[in-house]
Amino acid sequence: MQRTLTGEVVEHIGKQVMIEGWLHKKRLLGGLSFIMVRDRKGVTQVVVEDKDEVEKLRALQIGTVLRVEGTVAKEERAPGGAEIHDAKLEVMVPVLEAPPIEIDKPLDHKPENLETLLDNRVVGLRNLRETAIFKIQDRVLEGARRYFYKNGFTEMKTPKLLAKPTEGGAELFTMDYFGKTASLAQSAQFYKQIMVGVFERVFEMGGTYRAEPSSTTRHMTEYVTIDCEMGFVTFDELREFAHGLLKSVIDFVWEECPAELKLWDARKPLMSDKAVSITMAKVHELYELATKEVIHDKKDLTPAEEKWICEYAKKNLGTEAVFVTEWPASSMKFYHRKTEGNETMCDRSDFLFRGVEIMTCPMRENRYDVLIAQMKEQGLDEIEEGYQAYLSAFKYGLPPHGGFGWGLERTTQKILGLNNVKEATLFPRDINRLAP
Amino acid sequence: MQRTLTGEVVEHIGKQVMIEGWLHKKRLLGGLSFIMVRDRKGVTQVVVEDKDEVEKLRALQIGTVLRVEGTVAKEERAPGGAEIHDAKLEVMVPVLEAPPIEIDKPLDHKPENLETLLDNRVVGLRNLRETAIFKIQDRVLEGARRYFYKNGFTEMKTPKLLAKPTEGGAELFTMDYFGKTASLAQSAQFYKQIMVGVFERVFEMGGTYRAEPSSTTRHMTEYVTIDCEMGFVTFDELREFAHGLLKSVIDFVWEECPAELKLWDARKPLMSDKAVSITMAKVHELYELATKEVIHDKKDLTPAEEKWICEYAKKNLGTEAVFVTEWPASSMKFYHRKTEGNETMCDRSDFLFRGVEIMTCPMRENRYDVLIAQMKEQGLDEIEEGYQAYLSAFKYGLPPHGGFGWGLERTTQKILGLNNVKEATLFPRDINRLAP
Repeated sequence: MQRTLTGEVVEHIGKQVMIEGWLHKKRLLGGLSFIMVRDRKGVTQVVVEDKDEVEKLRALQIGTVLRVEGTVAKEERAPGGAEIHDAKLEVMVPVLEAPPIEIDKPLDHKPENLETLLDNRVVGLRNLRETAIFKIQDRVLEGARRYFYKNGFTEMKTPKLLAKPTEGGAELFTMDYFGKTASLAQSAQFYKQIMVGVFERVFEMGGTYRAEPSSTTRHMTEYVTIDCEMGFVTFDELREFAHGLLKSVIDFVWEECPAELKLWDARKPLMSDKAVSITMAKVHELYELATKEVIHDKKDLTPAEEKWICEYAKKNLGTEAVFVTEWPASSMKFYHRKTEGNETMCDRSDFLFRGVEIMTCPMRENRYDVLIAQMKEQGLDEIEEGYQAYLSAFKYGLPPHGGFGWGLERTTQKILGLNNVKEATLFPRDINRLAP
Repeated sequence: MQRTLTGEVVEHIGKQVMIEGWLHKKRLLGGLSFIMVRDRKGVTQVVVEDKDEVEKLRALQIGTVLRVEGTVAKEERAPGGAEIHDAKLEVMVPVLEAPPIEIDKPLDHKPENLETLLDNRVVGLRNLRETAIFKIQDRVLEGARRYFYKNGFTEMKTPKLLAKPTEGGAELFTMDYFGKTASLAQSAQFYKQIMVGVFERVFEMGGTYRAEPSSTTRHMTEYVTIDCEMGFVTFDELREFAHGLLKSVIDFVWEECPAELKLWDARKPLMSDKAVSITMAKVHELYELATKEVIHDKKDLTPAEEKWICEYAKKNLGTEAVFVTEWPASSMKFYHRKTEGNETMCDRSDFLFRGVEIMTCPMRENRYDVLIAQMKEQGLDEIEEGYQAYLSAFKYGLPPHGGFGWGLERTTQKILGLNNVKEATLFPRDINRLAP
């Protein structure tokens, strides 16, 4: 008999079906038993009436792999609106020990229980509320790709094994590479700029590695960045693109994952139609006015300001995602572009979403000679082998361009309102954790 | 004036347009000049009549970034069926030195010129014939994703920083990880099996790292694997799925990339509707009969046999992709499944395409106790920390499952008929190469 998926059982009311999946829940009530069977489409309730079949279930634990045959009956209160009656069970793989973590009740996500959650990840991910996080993450990736493709981008795969750090040398993992030293990529920065010369618009969704020596709620040593870079754009167009990307991904997730979002009581973020930008000076001014607190270092935003301005934008500007513009040149990397007509500023914006920065979104300096001058200003030597290939992209013509790196896990976290970025990572890595 | 992309110029015949892009080719003929301007959609021919404008071009080299305004005229012989007349040029970024490698003529792909090709990769990728390789690679990725999604798969992102080798310890990159030792993932094997317990069907397209100590036409130290794993399948269904994936990706590439394929005179691979499988014994028999050569080690295929059987299948079985089945148990990894009823064999198949193996496609042992026995047979200790999490997926119930890892670059290479896998890699890595 052909397998029916749990999500499609309701289409066979009154008929005989066979389902395969995991024993997800069991309730044995004397002569009558209810079980839930889980497969990739969700769960189906099965009513087991036959005494021998109930007996079979007694010693079996959650996780047991079952094949179930029975008749489909309409049942509004059951998941999917139907259940299976007169079930005959076949045990495909017995599980005889109870799992080390709850699979059929929501798991505790309190900070003090994070380590337990992660230690038992392999089995804990089978909990439908955990599964939902990563179903949504898959949709973030796919939603972003659809937006990139609609806008003429090409996907690229760039190397993560590098001879030289792409930028700076701090927090770098290094390894022996046949007698030389290789490092792990901290960003796709140089490659994505190089590829603007080839495809004009490129994206990548790949691993990023930082030897971050502390364990925080926001940092990991390995994470996925949705990287993109686009040529022939203005600074305004770049921000509009980034805003459109986030908005489009959010719409896509809310369209595709209603059940998963409901498990987390996720509220859809308010997003304006067009990008909303506020200058950093204005953020300081508004914040000081509202809180009576004085900001001494006006060259950056404090975490409190980041939170506050997002709340402000939500209440007053109709959006939970806002760009902060007009950054001082002192905050720039050598490859950022200074503002035309005002060399003390740079064309950088930070994109804040629900209280945290999710992307730095700057324009790049595309003129070869200016770029070299900026490298010298920052004490970098353009002769160094690691820069030569990168610089040749500029020497042989690169148009004005900009881009950003967007954290996949942090975005998933903020969509669902999770405390820690590690909760939105299948198998997270930090200073203390290299397994499972 | 709004920018028109080169591919859309033909839609504006008789009208004024503005294009932006790179000077891709120039031919100055006294009073009349022809140039090609390249952007992400291809190239457009521009006729420059005005003397001052021709003069402007004289010192400018290929790669110069231009803004061109002019009138569109129908011209069958020009790329895209139209060209721009009465052009006014604005130099956005001048290039004053000729590029170190040809951009407007096909590049030499002879083995002896590979190093030159790769040393000049940053600029050489702007050659349209090189660009075509990676446009096709993007379509392989997207074509595979569409097939996975159509078949109920979920994308996952698994860590590449590991505490323990996923399998064996040879050819492993290792690094200091805050005083511990981390290694780079040689495969997503353990994680994708674990994730069968969560999503039933999963895929990933991620980096794979092998400290391969030789430079060959088939091996690199970093490459992209299209990994997948599926639960509740039979061995036959698994091969059918893999065959369908390849066939579907090939159809997609041929639909999406006619121009790019033409640049390489790529011939569409012959693919049967259903998977074709031949036993290893039969391959030996057919090969010996045809070549009069004796195969002494009948437990594996020789490279000559792999080539020969693909040719045979093309001529006699209507396919250029064929599975070789019935492998001896001595060829198996501890997590492969032995054949039911014949413990000397295992449920492994190798998928050969155009003369090379592109995937090993085996079923996994899903029974906890049998898996542990197989680990012991191979001298592995299940108590070792690195295996405990993996084994817990089995202990708490995994259904019969199988999967494969599919090399992205090797597949792109074989689609186009390239000599070396590095030609199908943006920035390849091997024992001698860690840059650009």
